[in-house]
Amino acid sequence: MVFAQKNGRTIPKADKIFGISSRAKARIEEKGKEAVINATIGSMMDDEGNLAVLDSVIEVLRTLSPEEYAAYAPIGGTPAFKAAVCKAAFGKFETERYVEVCATPGGTGGIRNTVSNYSCPGDKVLTSDWYWAPYKTICQEIGRDLDTYTMFNEAGSFHLEAFAAKVEELAAAQGRLVIIINTPAHNPTGYSLTDEDWKGVVECLNTASAKGRITLLVDAAYIDFAGDEEAYRSFLPILEELNGNVLSILGYSASKTLTLYGMRCGAMICMAPSPEIAEEFRQVTEFSSRGSWSNCVRAGQTVLARIYEDEELLASVVAQRKEFRDVLIRRGKTFEKTLRAEGLANVPFDAGFFTCIACDDPEAVSEKLAEQDIFVVPLAKGIRISVASISEEKCVRAAKAIAKLMK
Amino acid sequence: MVFAQKNGRTIPKADKIFGISSRAKARIEEKGKEAVINATIGSMMDDEGNLAVLDSVIEVLRTLSPEEYAAYAPIGGTPAFKAAVCKAAFGKFETERYVEVCATPGGTGGIRNTVSNYSCPGDKVLTSDWYWAPYKTICQEIGRDLDTYTMFNEAGSFHLEAFAAKVEELAAAQGRLVIIINTPAHNPTGYSLTDEDWKGVVECLNTASAKGRITLLVDAAYIDFAGDEEAYRSFLPILEELNGNVLSILGYSASKTLTLYGMRCGAMICMAPSPEIAEEFRQVTEFSSRGSWSNCVRAGQTVLARIYEDEELLASVVAQRKEFRDVLIRRGKTFEKTLRAEGLANVPFDAGFFTCIACDDPEAVSEKLAEQDIFVVPLAKGIRISVASISEEKCVRAAKAIAKLMK
Repeated sequence: MVFAQKNGRTIPKADKIFGISSRAKARIEEKGKEAVINATIGSMMDDEGNLAVLDSVIEVLRTLSPEEYAAYAPIGGTPAFKAAVCKAAFGKFETERYVEVCATPGGTGGIRNTVSNYSCPGDKVLTSDWYWAPYKTICQEIGRDLDTYTMFNEAGSFHLEAFAAKVEELAAAQGRLVIIINTPAHNPTGYSLTDEDWKGVVECLNTASAKGRITLLVDAAYIDFAGDEEAYRSFLPILEELNGNVLSILGYSASKTLTLYGMRCGAMICMAPSPEIAEEFRQVTEFSSRGSWSNCVRAGQTVLARIYEDEELLASVVAQRKEFRDVLIRRGKTFEKTLRAEGLANVPFDAGFFTCIACDDPEAVSEKLAEQDIFVVPLAKGIRISVASISEEKCVRAAKAIAKLMK
Repeated sequence: MVFAQKNGRTIPKADKIFGISSRAKARIEEKGKEAVINATIGSMMDDEGNLAVLDSVIEVLRTLSPEEYAAYAPIGGTPAFKAAVCKAAFGKFETERYVEVCATPGGTGGIRNTVSNYSCPGDKVLTSDWYWAPYKTICQEIGRDLDTYTMFNEAGSFHLEAFAAKVEELAAAQGRLVIIINTPAHNPTGYSLTDEDWKGVVECLNTASAKGRITLLVDAAYIDFAGDEEAYRSFLPILEELNGNVLSILGYSASKTLTLYGMRCGAMICMAPSPEIAEEFRQVTEFSSRGSWSNCVRAGQTVLARIYEDEELLASVVAQRKEFRDVLIRRGKTFEKTLRAEGLANVPFDAGFFTCIACDDPEAVSEKLAEQDIFVVPLAKGIRISVASISEEKCVRAAKAIAKLMK
């Protein structure tokens, strides 16, 4: 560093994904939309490559009063938002636990506030070896580190044994542990933990929590893009079995569920084992918010609240989202089917924005694909393809080209 | 703590200002708007007690395309925003230094990112003894502490000697130092550093920087509410005299300047002594953003960019803001004049949203005022009155009642 303080962080010169995405855009300028497959984007695009936006949501956003755009929201969120986001996150599920809500800028803010309040500087936070890279950035930014467990066993299932071993090890070593599980439709693999997986996780956490308090953050950013919205919430009742030494927090993001990426509207919702832990959650997360970004965007909160106050409006949002989701699921299945028909397997995949293919030199593979006008994101353990951002036809083309290159 | 980790922070059970503000609102419900003086609010209200919002800004916000609301902005901000925010922050001033911009959620995000990147855990960050309380929250949230110097000497001027002594002490002890100066129209006193004050500050920093790198954050959130917008930027050329061991960063907030409090649109702008330091600023602040809130709200950035791309629109925003500012300045002057006519002095005051009165037991004084339906915020060294949130007539009433109570 020339002037700034490193403070233990690994700071890249440039954002990798942004760099690849810029190259893809430049190639499109040169060769046209049709010729280039830009599978790097973390937002859902329509078949023409334009951002897929829920019209019904934008309509609400356009008609707010000047005060709803301009006024500060309370640090923890407006009361109407807090009520609405619980409905949005929980669906028909009713928890018997103690719920508190803190509004956050997108899903990122909730992850940050969880790490800040339930781990200590120097701690390791645990997630799977396939993970969304910013988890590590979030940890490093506040002096924590990220550790990982092997996500899949050889049968292509969730590797409960590997998970349990790491949980035991870190809970014992630290006397506390924050765990991040991104599901359903995990970013980056698209895997969704099954109810059986979840039962195993809960049992493991209940056992390991004798060695240290455990905070489980379920990053459910993609929960409404995996499949039937109620079916994919079937894991929530299983979390009720967690004991008093485990705090579960649901990370919710309106970025995806309302296609409001750029409005930075999210929430962290605790399902606490006691009223004291819930009240403390409110206090510490509001302190963290105050000391990081202050309050969150009021307009996004009001939009979510309006939608959940108006059954007809909600129905139209849900219906339009289903259309988007159906397209997304078709793309994912088509990509997977084509790839496998060509003799190459993706990492265990269920649904969602992304799917991955494991390989030894992801940078080299993505570079070779770029030469063929196919842009993907190289991760530590393989390449990530955003089926959210390419048409079904391009899914077929991409899968064939990738299989041909990598087989 | 029952479950969370304290991590050295002093976490209050409830937000003090929010508590007082809620009591004021309840009293208004009970006795009516006219009877109650709610001088706790950090936003400008019109004489009827409604949020003062720049219509011209809202009009732009309402007419964005769906993509402008929905799409992610780049982590550091859109290129158009970066260009516009420099014009907005610098006015006619042209710096010879190396400028980089990072978008932040309001002014708060820029303070957070400055502390995170230019100090180390355990460091003390320096500001004046009259200070905006969240500075301390921001420092504590990431393991730093806040130290203060005596802001005013007995003559009621900026206490350059006290400032210099603390700067020397901390720069020597730490080998580096982050300093926050909130001006013009300082929150909470309303003081604006004069050009003479600034020349002294720059000389002091150039000397002290031999003992350690100094980062000077000028929190200019209220820069467009102090008086003539160009006159109040006369300190900017003085910053050009800082040497190569001092990095100055301007903290800008559209919350006040565009009355877009709830859109969380701000920026940190560096005026770096070398291209390397500017480029590093971009890298480290983007890393911090990525690991805290990810990207910032696109709509607010687009609104600012549109305004600065359209001369006519800009002229109408500037004209309407001048109307607001003239009201604000009249209120402040009237409050001060009335108070002094009653024989009580406020803390040295120039302009802005707030003014303060020093006292020994601020909590007791604010409680007694609340009994008289006057709500103010108790700080460590006195009470803070928001002239931004009460009419000129209420400024007179409040000043008289406060003088009567405190004289």
